[in-house]
Amino acid sequence: MHLIIDGFGSNPKLLESEDLLYQLLDDYPAQIGMTKVAPPHVFRYVGSKPEDWGISGFVLIAESHISIHTFPERGYVNIDIFSCKDFDSEQAIKDLQAKFELIKLRSYLLNRGLEYSNIETLELQRL
Amino acid sequence: MHLIIDGFGSNPKLLESEDLLYQLLDDYPAQIGMTKVAPPHVFRYVGSKPEDWGISGFVLIAESHISIHTFPERGYVNIDIFSCKDFDSEQAIKDLQAKFELIKLRSYLLNRGLEYSNIETLELQRL
Repeated sequence: MHLIIDGFGSNPKLLESEDLLYQLLDDYPAQIGMTKVAPPHVFRYVGSKPEDWGISGFVLIAESHISIHTFPERGYVNIDIFSCKDFDSEQAIKDLQAKFELIKLRSYLLNRGLEYSNIETLELQRL
Repeated sequence: MHLIIDGFGSNPKLLESEDLLYQLLDDYPAQIGMTKVAPPHVFRYVGSKPEDWGISGFVLIAESHISIHTFPERGYVNIDIFSCKDFDSEQAIKDLQAKFELIKLRSYLLNRGLEYSNIETLELQRL
């Protein structure tokens, strides 16, 4: 399944550090029973508008990934946890809300990944 | 915006090559007007069930990413195109359907990313 969180009102200091984001991507998969298949990759970037700079990171886990994009000047963060294995999505939302001190968030939970690979049942899985 | 495609019935030969996936992730961002901020990363993995092996790849683009996870034995592929910039999602679906010779697909289109970062308008953006 694929949990998507867009977080608002985060403490900017939590969004501007490549080290913090790396540690989160390195540690969090094991906390929710996932297996990393490669170390995290984290990059700092500056967009066409300097105030839109931020940190992007991802880590590949078995058959899927976690990605995070931050916008410190906006207190905004986009998080994806896409896993072939079920995990406690409500707990993950709480974990990430706490880690980034989010005031508000929007989340989606999609049924996708290996467990939904059967073409015969596709119609049943449509959102 | 974030386009999600789960593709079914793909030609397995198109899903089993790390080189093909790397080329797609390297070339496709420019085709839809996106800017890579790092080279693609592509990994082959074998899950707990050997038949669930596949290729995972991602490329970071400005403020967002493209990721692809393949399952050659199942003809199944999960694709995410998450971009801060608008792109032609219908054309992208056609492109990816053709590239992987998909028989069926399920897709979602989510409003997220930098253009939806304003906390005041959050309620309006809820799915």
